[in-house]
Amino acid sequence: MALNSLYVKKGFEQSIHEGHPWIYKNAINRIRGDFTPGDLVEIKDWRGKFLGIGYANPSSYIVARILTRKQERIDERFWRKRLKSALNFRCKTGIAELDAYRMVFSEADFLPGVIIDKFGDYIVLQTLTLGMDRFKEIIVRVLTDLFPVKGIYHKNDVPVRAIEGLSQEDCLLFGEVPDEVIIEENGVKFCVNIAGGQKTGHFLDQRRNRVLLKDISKGADVLDAFCYTGGFGLNAARFGAKTVFGVDVSEDAVATARRNAGLNGFDAVCRYDVANVFDRLRELEPKGQRYDVIVLDPPAFAKNKKAVEGALRGYKEINLRAMKIIKEGGFLLTCSCSHHISWDLFEGVIFEAAKDAGKTLRVVAREGQSPDHPVLMGFDESLYLKCLLLEVS
Amino acid sequence: MALNSLYVKKGFEQSIHEGHPWIYKNAINRIRGDFTPGDLVEIKDWRGKFLGIGYANPSSYIVARILTRKQERIDERFWRKRLKSALNFRCKTGIAELDAYRMVFSEADFLPGVIIDKFGDYIVLQTLTLGMDRFKEIIVRVLTDLFPVKGIYHKNDVPVRAIEGLSQEDCLLFGEVPDEVIIEENGVKFCVNIAGGQKTGHFLDQRRNRVLLKDISKGADVLDAFCYTGGFGLNAARFGAKTVFGVDVSEDAVATARRNAGLNGFDAVCRYDVANVFDRLRELEPKGQRYDVIVLDPPAFAKNKKAVEGALRGYKEINLRAMKIIKEGGFLLTCSCSHHISWDLFEGVIFEAAKDAGKTLRVVAREGQSPDHPVLMGFDESLYLKCLLLEVS
Repeated sequence: MALNSLYVKKGFEQSIHEGHPWIYKNAINRIRGDFTPGDLVEIKDWRGKFLGIGYANPSSYIVARILTRKQERIDERFWRKRLKSALNFRCKTGIAELDAYRMVFSEADFLPGVIIDKFGDYIVLQTLTLGMDRFKEIIVRVLTDLFPVKGIYHKNDVPVRAIEGLSQEDCLLFGEVPDEVIIEENGVKFCVNIAGGQKTGHFLDQRRNRVLLKDISKGADVLDAFCYTGGFGLNAARFGAKTVFGVDVSEDAVATARRNAGLNGFDAVCRYDVANVFDRLRELEPKGQRYDVIVLDPPAFAKNKKAVEGALRGYKEINLRAMKIIKEGGFLLTCSCSHHISWDLFEGVIFEAAKDAGKTLRVVAREGQSPDHPVLMGFDESLYLKCLLLEVS
Repeated sequence: MALNSLYVKKGFEQSIHEGHPWIYKNAINRIRGDFTPGDLVEIKDWRGKFLGIGYANPSSYIVARILTRKQERIDERFWRKRLKSALNFRCKTGIAELDAYRMVFSEADFLPGVIIDKFGDYIVLQTLTLGMDRFKEIIVRVLTDLFPVKGIYHKNDVPVRAIEGLSQEDCLLFGEVPDEVIIEENGVKFCVNIAGGQKTGHFLDQRRNRVLLKDISKGADVLDAFCYTGGFGLNAARFGAKTVFGVDVSEDAVATARRNAGLNGFDAVCRYDVANVFDRLRELEPKGQRYDVIVLDPPAFAKNKKAVEGALRGYKEINLRAMKIIKEGGFLLTCSCSHHISWDLFEGVIFEAAKDAGKTLRVVAREGQSPDHPVLMGFDESLYLKCLLLEVS
């Protein structure tokens, strides 16, 4: 059956040629034919020249996303090719040897709208768009062929699905998935709550950055702010921290962090508190609490462009307060996972905070996402995580 | 004896307050008193408010460089404090356990105009300014106190010394220094030619980036362009490369690279050629030579702002040519060590090259200098090395 055609306005084909896989509402000329939201379409420029095949949903601001730039059938062979290619990239870069990693990172793996995380023998699948949701069965079929997988869980509690007109209810797609899966990351055990956790249950994108705590954590008093289930702090403990104090506003997250500390025999080192990090940071300074290492890994403060200004104020405040309670010559590992906060904006606000705090900063490391979350050049949206390790004096 | 005073024009104190340690010719109001080039001066703002103590040389474009922002004596105790602090930073970050590392990185270690590299039991000292050159004896005294050092070599073959009115002749400052020192980096042995090598003899700033070749080098055909004494290529061989082909225009560098290959038992894997890399890259494409991994670590193409445009053309050409001879899904590790080429410019030119080559790039890693070359925030000049690991398809 021939696909319907989606025509892009003159001039808007340029970014597509440069590798950007999205077609925004304002770039659409028209869709020809009998079209149901979620259908595959042939994307063409204003002259009718073929640009690629993608799926479309006119109710989203991003009307279409490109799956391929070749004239090919989007059949099981296509999905097998794409998923094998994603896996092959992770084999070549050593990632596939890990216990847990992101197997498919949406557009950056040329599969717009799908996230696949592997936790031991279990897989968590997220389909973020109507067009991709239609292919979940075929994806499951290919995944079970590629891996000796015990269970695949469809994690759908993402607000973006509502925009696409999709349900936000989770479900099991294959086999069985236990309430908890124990994975190992950098030699630390983590209990991943697949059904109940935030996102897919564990933030795999910080795996490599957690290793930055090596050496500097030895014998250190560490504050892990926005600790979630303990990722950074438990790595610090493993690297020899004297004490780790984790703070997060989520009771569930802190409960899991405590469990994770126990799992690794770090109960005596790690202490956790359910609290608002802004409030807690404010309280620590007058109390005279000082740390050798502070980790700031907040959730995305800027979820969209409009929120950037407020987000910058937030980043400045937490960084300023952290700098004030770091011991002379101590270290600040500070992150932003907002795509809308560029490196320039992020470094700018950190520098402003240092000036206000009367501190001098030296950059020890400047990192991004772990490589199982590659950045596709020409698609800036795939770069979101920024992580700075700074010496503060 | 009271120091002479150097007055900064109104408005120019701002960058100094923000941590920049340089005072340019156009920022100087006047120097009061009987002044000899290289002398220490008290740096003051236009109202006479103390900003710091530095040394001055009116024949340089950078007239003064700040050593301290405190009212303190620049005596042996000062040098001991600064050098101990530089060492302490390297202890805390695990660098001091290495066989070879940069012990002092000039301004970023609050010691403008001095570079100190440690190669096993030997130290290479570079003083880049007249003001710092005066303190070499005191620095040697403190270094021999801090370390069980066998020899300190004064490496002076840097053009910038001529601007400062200094000789470019090398000399021995302490003990004995052999013609060659064998060091180990990431498990690879390197023969460092202290007296004859470029810069201080081995590019320590790429140590951490060389580890990026792990995993991707396994069984790979690797092209190490601008290989110098073999740094990247020998790391690739250690990580299991099938073949390494190194190209550099310097006969001496290639001779050392060959020796280094032998030293590690990689003669059968590594082959070297003395050639212009631009020419060689041009020849490889029509010959049908293809590589799994290509390393591009050229010397600084833009030594000053005026050279940026030409440099970008150079970066574009080598990257374009490299992309064309990388196998599908292979990797390009590409670097720029020109401070004047910003991250934005560098990534921009790489993206342009990819468009021309018809390639898609994914960023696996985006790194800077190894942490023994920290970046001082507020002093952009201390950031110079940019290193991208890209998948090319």
